[in-house]
Amino acid sequence: MTGIVLDKARIATMCVGDKPYGLVDDGALAIAEDGTIAYAGPAADLPARFAGWDRQGQDGRLITPALVDCHTHIVFGGNRAREFEMRLEGASYEEVARAGGGIVSTVTATRAADEEALLADALPRLDTLIAEGVATIEVKSGYGLTIADELKMLRVARRLGQIRPVRVVTTYLAAHATPAEYKGRDDAYLDEVVLPGLDAGHAEGLIDAVDGFCEGIAFSPEQMTRVFDRAAALGLPVKLHAEQLSDLGGARMAAEHKALSADHLEYLGQDGVDAMARAGTVAVLLPGAFYTLRETQYPPVAALRAAGVPIALATDCNPGSSPLTSLLLTMNMGATLFRLTPEEALAGATREAARALGLAGSLGTLEAGKQADLAIWNVTEPAELIYRIGFNPLHQRLIGGKP
Amino acid sequence: MTGIVLDKARIATMCVGDKPYGLVDDGALAIAEDGTIAYAGPAADLPARFAGWDRQGQDGRLITPALVDCHTHIVFGGNRAREFEMRLEGASYEEVARAGGGIVSTVTATRAADEEALLADALPRLDTLIAEGVATIEVKSGYGLTIADELKMLRVARRLGQIRPVRVVTTYLAAHATPAEYKGRDDAYLDEVVLPGLDAGHAEGLIDAVDGFCEGIAFSPEQMTRVFDRAAALGLPVKLHAEQLSDLGGARMAAEHKALSADHLEYLGQDGVDAMARAGTVAVLLPGAFYTLRETQYPPVAALRAAGVPIALATDCNPGSSPLTSLLLTMNMGATLFRLTPEEALAGATREAARALGLAGSLGTLEAGKQADLAIWNVTEPAELIYRIGFNPLHQRLIGGKP
Ligand SMILES: [Zn+2]
Ligand SMILES: [Zn+2]
Repeated sequence: MTGIVLDKARIATMCVGDKPYGLVDDGALAIAEDGTIAYAGPAADLPARFAGWDRQGQDGRLITPALVDCHTHIVFGGNRAREFEMRLEGASYEEVARAGGGIVSTVTATRAADEEALLADALPRLDTLIAEGVATIEVKSGYGLTIADELKMLRVARRLGQIRPVRVVTTYLAAHATPAEYKGRDDAYLDEVVLPGLDAGHAEGLIDAVDGFCEGIAFSPEQMTRVFDRAAALGLPVKLHAEQLSDLGGARMAAEHKALSADHLEYLGQDGVDAMARAGTVAVLLPGAFYTLRETQYPPVAALRAAGVPIALATDCNPGSSPLTSLLLTMNMGATLFRLTPEEALAGATREAARALGLAGSLGTLEAGKQADLAIWNVTEPAELIYRIGFNPLHQRLIGGKP
Repeated sequence: MTGIVLDKARIATMCVGDKPYGLVDDGALAIAEDGTIAYAGPAADLPARFAGWDRQGQDGRLITPALVDCHTHIVFGGNRAREFEMRLEGASYEEVARAGGGIVSTVTATRAADEEALLADALPRLDTLIAEGVATIEVKSGYGLTIADELKMLRVARRLGQIRPVRVVTTYLAAHATPAEYKGRDDAYLDEVVLPGLDAGHAEGLIDAVDGFCEGIAFSPEQMTRVFDRAAALGLPVKLHAEQLSDLGGARMAAEHKALSADHLEYLGQDGVDAMARAGTVAVLLPGAFYTLRETQYPPVAALRAAGVPIALATDCNPGSSPLTSLLLTMNMGATLFRLTPEEALAGATREAARALGLAGSLGTLEAGKQADLAIWNVTEPAELIYRIGFNPLHQRLIGGKP
């Protein structure tokens, strides 16, 4: 077996240990031909068996795990810039709704679009993330709200991963909202669309995980339990949009279902924190939505930290509450708005984001045996990636060892 | 005379008139060989004398004036990522200061750097702005705080405009802070450094305008008056960092000196608003600093609007309070945080930013006689430029009609 060795690099392995960021000052990273990491550590300790491998000096650049965006709604139809403008011009929610705005407009446009159109719309968003070093992205359905349209969205998500060098993890989110045709009949929507759609999508191999929006304006914990029970029967992991606008106990319920993550969490209480800590459920914080909605209730970062709940960060890229396609900016927002340390922010977009997708075994840190998904940056201090705003210092991204 | 005609475009002329954004749906824009705009308006009304000019169809893309960043500190030495990190790790201001942080660290690093080093550091920041459609940038001194080091910074600013296709407007900001060697002797610093440095920089042709930081922790309105009087004697326009942390009446004083702009303005009161309106002084709002400092006091946008004070937006790119190199994101922050409409935000980064630099006669709108500084975008709705976060849809930038 042979491969390449990247050296003359600072390596932020993001492995948990003595050093912040798992930082190795004079590091070397060996990539096997199968695209996995064969060695990551001090150059001085590189085993002799790698001596014959090609060397690629990195001029002292910083290498981190490639970024992982673990919560996105990047596939959708339409454009809500005009709605954004109407709101800033003083239009009321009613006026926006009368003009066809709100999630309804995205559902209408998503239903009207075919796979090609959805793909064409999503690609520039995806390419922007990839250009910042993202190599894994989660993509949710949730704007179709019919079986056919939810599966159409997930097929587009899968195709994104075929067309572009990026790992796509799909999430079934039919329980995002009750569509107009089921207004007042949430349970009928669950019975007639969400549950049979889950079966159908699973049969087609389109679903990696199952999600829902647990909120007063969406689904109750009891309703989400029905969805999660079906997911469990199919052997699919679950996650939940929880405690974004109020505390319904959604995160606790999700943790009791061994959820991979509970996401948003501005209104999470201590019992939810404790339940997540017990279950190992990741807290996925979404500062782009917090910022866009001018939220003033902060997620309980100190309590999560104290309880040892892993914290991830994601763009939540979506056309309504977070039209954000920068995970670097998301890290800055996580630090600036939520007071995460830069190390927590970078861990949140690498190690903990991978954990939130159930991929901690293969992604998220730089260590032997994991996939060689790397970002090589024109900086030397990891904190620079979080400190700067609106600047992309990516030198190169590797996925499975390949540019 | 001949030139080129851009057509098949939507044109946001940003001229004040009936239509929001001065929008022309099926527009044409004629660029003369001297780099000025010969015509901008409906394609149907294009005068016959342009019939023989080369046509370049834009596939329906949106054309706006090139962006103008009218307040930056983009030339500086050093890096304050570690300080950012220390603060988030809980260090006190004293601990940060003991570790060499704060503006002192930037002054020390700027003094230690030669012109080449400062140039090399500034270029990636400038290139990031240019890549987003910026064609004019203001650059301040203010981290040298000796005559020689202030002039060194301004020489670097001038060289940026020679090395890159961008118009650079320089501002002398020796009255940014009193350096350690003059601690407690502000007036001596003014007499021995700020005023003679102003004379020397003016004699060398390095100074387009004069600025100061008017604040309890910096200079008083009375002290700034001394600087402004000298500027007036030299025929140089003035501007002021004012009312960022408290209301000292700085903006009113600046307006009475016919200042081009007063900048920051979170604590501006009604008398300051009225004085600015009378003088035509532009309010330059800096949401990047507001965001980074987690400020909760909002600039009085409604009062500025009501009084007819022109509002501009700028990055305030600087290593301490706004390490921001995206004017697109600045526009989003202006809308999201300060509730500017998208039209106000775009005007703030074009027409009113040009006005804040005293360049309203030649830049900032698309109309015959002005410079052909354009940004051509892969969007059709102007609001999309403001609505999206962390996305750059620039197709092409022209400056003086040239790519
Ligand atoms: Zn979401
Ligand atoms: Zn400033």
